[in-house]
Amino acid sequence: SWLHSCAVLRSGELPQSKFFKPLEDAMLPAGSFNNRVAFITGGGTGLGRAMTTTLSALGAQCVIASRKLDVLQQTAGEISSQTGNKVHAVQCDVKDPQAVSRCVDQMEALTGLPDVIINNAAGNFVCPSERLSPNAWKSITDIVLNGTAFVTLELGKRLIQNQKGASFLAITTIYAESGSGFVVPSASAKAGVEALYKSLASEWGRYGHRFNIIQPGPIRTKGAFSRLDPTGSFEKSMIGRIPVGRLGQPGEIANLAAYMSSDYATWMSGAVIRLDGGEYLSMAGEFNELRRVTPDQWKMMEAMIRSTKGS
Amino acid sequence: SWLHSCAVLRSGELPQSKFFKPLEDAMLPAGSFNNRVAFITGGGTGLGRAMTTTLSALGAQCVIASRKLDVLQQTAGEISSQTGNKVHAVQCDVKDPQAVSRCVDQMEALTGLPDVIINNAAGNFVCPSERLSPNAWKSITDIVLNGTAFVTLELGKRLIQNQKGASFLAITTIYAESGSGFVVPSASAKAGVEALYKSLASEWGRYGHRFNIIQPGPIRTKGAFSRLDPTGSFEKSMIGRIPVGRLGQPGEIANLAAYMSSDYATWMSGAVIRLDGGEYLSMAGEFNELRRVTPDQWKMMEAMIRSTKGS
Amino acid sequence: SWLHSCAVLRSGELPQSKFFKPLEDAMLPAGSFNNRVAFITGGGTGLGRAMTTTLSALGAQCVIASRKLDVLQQTAGEISSQTGNKVHAVQCDVKDPQAVSRCVDQMEALTGLPDVIINNAAGNFVCPSERLSPNAWKSITDIVLNGTAFVTLELGKRLIQNQKGASFLAITTIYAESGSGFVVPSASAKAGVEALYKSLASEWGRYGHRFNIIQPGPIRTKGAFSRLDPTGSFEKSMIGRIPVGRLGQPGEIANLAAYMSSDYATWMSGAVIRLDGGEYLSMAGEFNELRRVTPDQWKMMEAMIRSTKGS
Amino acid sequence: SWLHSCAVLRSGELPQSKFFKPLEDAMLPAGSFNNRVAFITGGGTGLGRAMTTTLSALGAQCVIASRKLDVLQQTAGEISSQTGNKVHAVQCDVKDPQAVSRCVDQMEALTGLPDVIINNAAGNFVCPSERLSPNAWKSITDIVLNGTAFVTLELGKRLIQNQKGASFLAITTIYAESGSGFVVPSASAKAGVEALYKSLASEWGRYGHRFNIIQPGPIRTKGAFSRLDPTGSFEKSMIGRIPVGRLGQPGEIANLAAYMSSDYATWMSGAVIRLDGGEYLSMAGEFNELRRVTPDQWKMMEAMIRSTKGS
Ligand SMILES: NC(=O)c1ccc[n+]([C@@H]2O[C@H](COP(=O)([O-])OP(=O)(O)OC[C@H]3O[C@@H](n4cnc5c(N)ncnc54)[C@H](OP(=O)(O)O)[C@@H]3O)[C@@H](O)[C@H]2O)c1
Ligand SMILES: NC(=O)c1ccc[n+]([C@@H]2O[C@H](COP(=O)([O-])OP(=O)(O)OC[C@H]3O[C@@H](n4cnc5c(N)ncnc54)[C@H](OP(=O)(O)O)[C@@H]3O)[C@@H](O)[C@H]2O)c1
Ligand SMILES: NC(=O)c1ccc[n+]([C@@H]2O[C@H](COP(=O)([O-])OP(=O)(O)OC[C@H]3O[C@@H](n4cnc5c(N)ncnc54)[C@H](OP(=O)(O)O)[C@@H]3O)[C@@H](O)[C@H]2O)c1
Ligand SMILES: NC(=O)c1ccc[n+]([C@@H]2O[C@H](COP(=O)([O-])OP(=O)(O)OC[C@H]3O[C@@H](n4cnc5c(N)ncnc54)[C@H](OP(=O)(O)O)[C@@H]3O)[C@@H](O)[C@H]2O)c1
Repeated sequence: SWLHSCAVLRSGELPQSKFFKPLEDAMLPAGSFNNRVAFITGGGTGLGRAMTTTLSALGAQCVIASRKLDVLQQTAGEISSQTGNKVHAVQCDVKDPQAVSRCVDQMEALTGLPDVIINNAAGNFVCPSERLSPNAWKSITDIVLNGTAFVTLELGKRLIQNQKGASFLAITTIYAESGSGFVVPSASAKAGVEALYKSLASEWGRYGHRFNIIQPGPIRTKGAFSRLDPTGSFEKSMIGRIPVGRLGQPGEIANLAAYMSSDYATWMSGAVIRLDGGEYLSMAGEFNELRRVTPDQWKMMEAMIRSTKGS
Repeated sequence: SWLHSCAVLRSGELPQSKFFKPLEDAMLPAGSFNNRVAFITGGGTGLGRAMTTTLSALGAQCVIASRKLDVLQQTAGEISSQTGNKVHAVQCDVKDPQAVSRCVDQMEALTGLPDVIINNAAGNFVCPSERLSPNAWKSITDIVLNGTAFVTLELGKRLIQNQKGASFLAITTIYAESGSGFVVPSASAKAGVEALYKSLASEWGRYGHRFNIIQPGPIRTKGAFSRLDPTGSFEKSMIGRIPVGRLGQPGEIANLAAYMSSDYATWMSGAVIRLDGGEYLSMAGEFNELRRVTPDQWKMMEAMIRSTKGS
Repeated sequence: SWLHSCAVLRSGELPQSKFFKPLEDAMLPAGSFNNRVAFITGGGTGLGRAMTTTLSALGAQCVIASRKLDVLQQTAGEISSQTGNKVHAVQCDVKDPQAVSRCVDQMEALTGLPDVIINNAAGNFVCPSERLSPNAWKSITDIVLNGTAFVTLELGKRLIQNQKGASFLAITTIYAESGSGFVVPSASAKAGVEALYKSLASEWGRYGHRFNIIQPGPIRTKGAFSRLDPTGSFEKSMIGRIPVGRLGQPGEIANLAAYMSSDYATWMSGAVIRLDGGEYLSMAGEFNELRRVTPDQWKMMEAMIRSTKGS
Repeated sequence: SWLHSCAVLRSGELPQSKFFKPLEDAMLPAGSFNNRVAFITGGGTGLGRAMTTTLSALGAQCVIASRKLDVLQQTAGEISSQTGNKVHAVQCDVKDPQAVSRCVDQMEALTGLPDVIINNAAGNFVCPSERLSPNAWKSITDIVLNGTAFVTLELGKRLIQNQKGASFLAITTIYAESGSGFVVPSASAKAGVEALYKSLASEWGRYGHRFNIIQPGPIRTKGAFSRLDPTGSFEKSMIGRIPVGRLGQPGEIANLAAYMSSDYATWMSGAVIRLDGGEYLSMAGEFNELRRVTPDQWKMMEAMIRSTKGS
C-alpha cells in the first residue's frame, strides 16, 4: 500500500501465509470521513499512526495526541502531505486529567469536538510479576486504564453537553480476556478498558455514542516489540502458532478501525473484535498441538483408537 | 440504498436513532470480489439474500442454496439483473449429507469450488422447552448444527484436496453465548456452530482457510420475525433496550460479511463479531435498568448515597 | 444457621424460592482450616465478615483488614467468641501501598504469612457516568483494582521469598464481564481484578499459588445496598429476574469461598465462579422475557407460528 | 482416599505439585444426600463412577445408566458394597429418545424421579477434521448433544409434571469455549450442551430446577485417554503447561459435583466451573511461554527494555 510503510516479508512466516496476503489499501469509499474530526491518542507511532493515516486518507481532519510533541508533529506533517488533509498534533499525557482537559480545549479551538475517538495510547513491558513495584504497576495502569477513562469521560461529557453523537474505539489486546503472565499490569488495565467501553456502550447510546473494541494480535511495531520481545526470540514461536502463518500489518488494523468508526457501522456498539490471525484460539484450544502429528502418525493413532472401541 | 429493499422507519424507534442512521450501500471497493465465487446457504431470503446482493454487486459470482428452488431462482434472477453478475440457484437441504454432496458437485460444475462460503441457513421458533419433543429438538439442531457441519466438512475436504484457500463465515446469534430460554434448540445448535468454526480456525489455517462468525441482533426479516415474534408485541420491548435505538438492517450485516470475506480481512480468523446495536450488553449489565431513573431522581439518590458515606 | 445473622425472608421472593432454600451452615469438615492462617480484606462487614466467620469456624486463624479499626475489632471479637478461634484486626487502607506493607508486617508478627488470601474489600456507588469526575473514578478504581494489586503483589512476593504456597481468592461481580452502565468505575476495576487473578493463575502456579474468583450476584449487605439501591426500589425488579427467585445469603458465598480456599480445591486455579441465582444469564438471554407469556398465549402463538411453516 | 481407586503419582509431575496434593475424600457432611435420588449417565466408569461413589457415600440412592449393562452392574455392586447405599444399573443409549424414555420409566419404578441429575455420558476421539465423515461427526454429536438434550428434556418434563425440583449438572470440557482442532465434533457438541444448560437455567428456574456445568481439564481415565492420547506422548506436554503441575483426579471432580448438586448450592444456577489446574488460561495467555525465561535472561531483558524507554 502506498499509504503504509512497506513491509518486507520476514523469514519465519509459515507456508500458508501465501493464502493470506495482507492488503493495506484504504478499504472504505473515498471521502467516507469528509467533514469528520477524528481524535487518536498515541497517533504519532505504530498502530495509531496507521489508523490516522487511513482516516486522513478517507477525508477526516485528524488530531493526534501523546507525550512527545516532536514525534507527533513529524507524523502529522508526513501524513498531511500524503493525504492532503489536516493533521493536528497536540501534546497530552493521558494519565493527567488536567492535561487531558487542556488537550480537549485545544482541540475544540482547532477543530471542534470530534466525531471519531480512538483510544490507542498505551504502555507495556514484559516482567515477572514478583519484580513489580507498586510504581511499576501504576506506570502502566495509569496510562492504559485511567488514561483511557479520563479521555473518554472528558470527551463524553462535552459531547453530551453539545448533543453531539460520536464513535469511540479502544485498542486493547487478545490477552485482555484470558489474562497473561509476564504482562500483568497491561492485562489488568486492558481488561478494565474493555469493561469501561462495554459499560458505556450500554449507558451512553442514549446520547448518540457508540463504543467498540479491537483486540489486535501481534503486529511488529517498534513500540510494542522493543518492550515485549527485546531479544526477538519470542517472535518465531508466536508465528508458529498463528493459523494464518504471519504477523499482522498496521494497515489491517487501520481498515477495521475505519470501518468500525464509520457510518457503515452505526448499528455496531459494544462489539469486541479480535484481529489476530487466529492466534488466540490456536493457543487456547487444548488439542491444537496435535498439528505436529504427521499423516503417518495419524494412521497409527487411528488404528490404536479403533482397537479401544467397544472397550 | 438501491441495493436493498427500502425500509420505512417504524414507530418504536428511540430518539437517539437519529445519530445512528443505517447505511446499506456496498462499502467495499467495486470489484473486490471479481473472479471470486461465493456460496451462501439460505441465500434466497432475509440476511442471506442481502449478503448475496452485496457480494454480487462487488463482482462475485454467487451460488445460493436452500430447500425452496423457486424462491432461490426468483432471488437469483432479481439480484443478477440488478448487479449484472451471475447468481446460481441450487436446491439443497443442508441436513442431508448426500444432498450437500450433490449440491457441491453441481457447484463444481457451474463455477468451480468457492472462495467464500457463508453458512447462513437456519431454522428457529419460540417455544417453552417443556413442550419440545425429541423431533422438535432435532428439527432445529439438524439444520443449524449438523447442516453447517456437513456443508463445511464437504467443502473443506474438497478445497484441501485442491489446495485452494477460502474464507468461511457462519451467521449465529447474540444468544449463542448466554443461551436463552424459549429458543433452546437454536441456542444450543448455534453455540455448536461457533465452536465448530473456532475449532477449524485453529486447525485448518494450515490449508489456507479462515473461519469467522457474525452474531446478529434483531433484524426484521420475514423468516425470523414470523417465528420469533408472531404477535409483534415483543419487538417494542426489544427496541427499548437497544442502545442505538433501532433494529438492524440486512445491508448492515451484508457489509460486515463482505469485509470479513474479503482480502482486507486475511488476518482475521477465529473472530466472533457481535452486530446488534448494543442489545446484548445492554441486557446483560446488571444496573442498566437505571436508565429509567430521571435526572431529579438521580439528585435524590446521590444525596441518599452521600449520607451513607463513612458508615 | 447459627453462624450467620438470621435473615428473615422478605416479601418479593418468587414462589419457586421454596425449592431453593439457603443453607448457610459451614459445609466443609470441622478442622479443614486447622493450622491455617487466612487474610481477608474488608473482613469486618458483609460478605467479608461471613467468609471470616466460616473460615474461623473451620479452624483458621483469621486476620481481617480494612480502614475502620473499631468495626474490625468488634467483628473480630464477636466471631472469635462464636468459634473459639483467634481473629486479628489490622487497620489497612488497601489503596496505599505503604499501608499494605505495614499491614503485612503486622500480620507476619502476629500469625506468619497466610495460607489463604481473600481480596474482598471494595467500594462502589451508582452514578450516571457523565457525572463522574476524575476523582470519583479514582476513588473506586484505586481501592478495587490498585488495592487488590498492592495486597496481592506484596503477599505474593513475601510468600515466594519464603517458598510458601497459598490460595488467593478475589470477590468480583457478575457485571465484570458484560460491564454495566451506572457502576462504570466498579465494572472496570473488577474486570481488571479478574485479569490480574487469571494472569497470576498462569504465572505463579510454579510458586505454589492458586488464584480464583467468585462473582456474586445480589446479596443484601448494608454496604452494597445502601450505595447501589438507596431507595430500595431496584430490589424487586432484580428478584423478578432471578431464576431461583431470591437474593443470595452471605453464608452461601462463604461456603463456596471456603471450598475454593481449601485442600479440596488444590486442582482449581484460574476459575471464575458465578454465584447469582442465575440472574446474569437470565438478563443476558434475548428471549427470556417470554417468561411473561401465559400458557394460553403460548397456544395462540404456536398456532400462528405453525401457519407460517412452509412459507 | 478410600473412596477412589488409588492413583500412583506418575513421573512428569512438576515440582510445584507438592503444594497441590489432591484430596479426594468426600467433602460434604455425611448424609448430605440422604433421601435423595441421583441419576448419573455414564456412571459406570471414569468420572461418572467417581461422582456416583461420592454421592452414594453421602447418602444418595444412585441410578447409573449407559450402554454396557455388565459394566454398570459391576460398578453398582462395588460402590454399593463400599457405601452401604443402593446403586441401580439401568441400560440406556442416550442418543435414542425411546431408550431414554424407557430408562426413566424404569427409574421411576425403582426410585421415583431424581433430585440430582448428572449428564456425564460422552464419546470422543482425536482426528483431523478432513478425515471426518458425516457419520463420524454424528457418532459424537448424537451422544453428547442430542443425548444430553433427550435425557434433560425427558426428565425435565416429568419433574415439571410432578412439581418436583431438581439439580441438573452437565460435564463438558475446557475446550467448549475456545473450540479445539482435532476434537471438533466433541467441541461443538459440548458447546451445545453448555448453551442448553445455560438456557434452561434461565427458563426452568420457575419450576424449581437449577442447571450448572463443570469443565474438567485432563484427568487420566481409561475412556478419555485411550481415545485422546493413545500413544501417551501428549500427556507430558499437557502437564508441562498446567500451573498446578499435575493432572486432576476423579475424586476432585466428584467433590465439586457433589457441592454443586447439594443444598449448599441452591443459589447456584447457570454457573460454568472450570476445574483444570489452570491449564486453560495458561495455554490461552499470549506471554505465558515466557515461563521458560531464566532469571539471568530476565536481567538481560530488563536492561534491554530499559534502554528503549523514552525512545
Ligand atoms: N503492536 C502489537 O503487537 C499490539 C498488540 C496488541 C495491542 N496493541 C495495542 O495497540 C496500541 C498501539 O501500540 P503500538 O504497537 O502502536 O505501540 P506504540 O507505537 O508504542 O504506541 C503507543 C503510543 O502510546 C503513546 N503513549 C504512551 N504513553 C502515553 C501517555 N501517557 N499519554 C499519551 N500517549 C501515550 C505513545 O506516544 P508517546 O510516547 O509520544 O506518549 C505511542 O504513540 C496500544 O494500545 C497497544 O497496547 C499492540
Ligand atoms: N433476523 C434476525 O433477527 C436474526 C438474528 C440473529 C441471527 N439470525 C440468523 O441469520 C440467518 C438468516 O436468518 P433470516 O433472518 O434471514 O431468516 P430466513 O429468511 O428465514 O433465512 C433462513 C434461510 O435458511 C434456509 N433454510 C432453512 N432450512 C434449510 C435447510 N434445511 N437447508 C437449506 N436451507 C435452509 C431458508 O430457505 P429454505 O426455506 O428455502 O430452505 C432461508 O432462506 C439465520 O442463521 C438466523 O439464525 C437472524
Ligand atoms: N453484596 C452484594 O450484592 C455484592 C455483589 C457483588 C459483589 N460484591 C462484592 O463483595 C465484596 C463485599 O461487599 P459487601 O457487600 O460485603 O459490602 P461491604 O460490607 O461494604 O464490604 C466492603 C468492605 O470493604 C472494605 N473497604 C472499603 N474500602 C477499603 C479500603 N480502601 N481499604 C481496605 N478496606 C476497604 C470496607 O471496610 P472499611 O470501610 O472498614 O474500609 C468493607 O468492609 C465487595 O468486593 C463487593 O464488590 C457484593
Ligand atoms: N477424563 C478427562 O480428562 C475429561 C476431560 C474433560 C471432560 N471429560 C468428560 O467427562 C465425562 C466422563 O468422561 P471419562 O473421562 O470418565 O470417560 P469414560 O469413562 O469413557 O466415560 C464416558 C461414559 O459415557 C458412557 N457413554 C458413552 N456413550 C454412551 C451412550 N450412547 N449412552 C449412554 N452412555 C454412554 C460410557 O459408558 P458405556 O460405554 O457403557 O455407554 C462411559 O461410562 C465425559 O463427558 C467427558 O467428555 C473428561
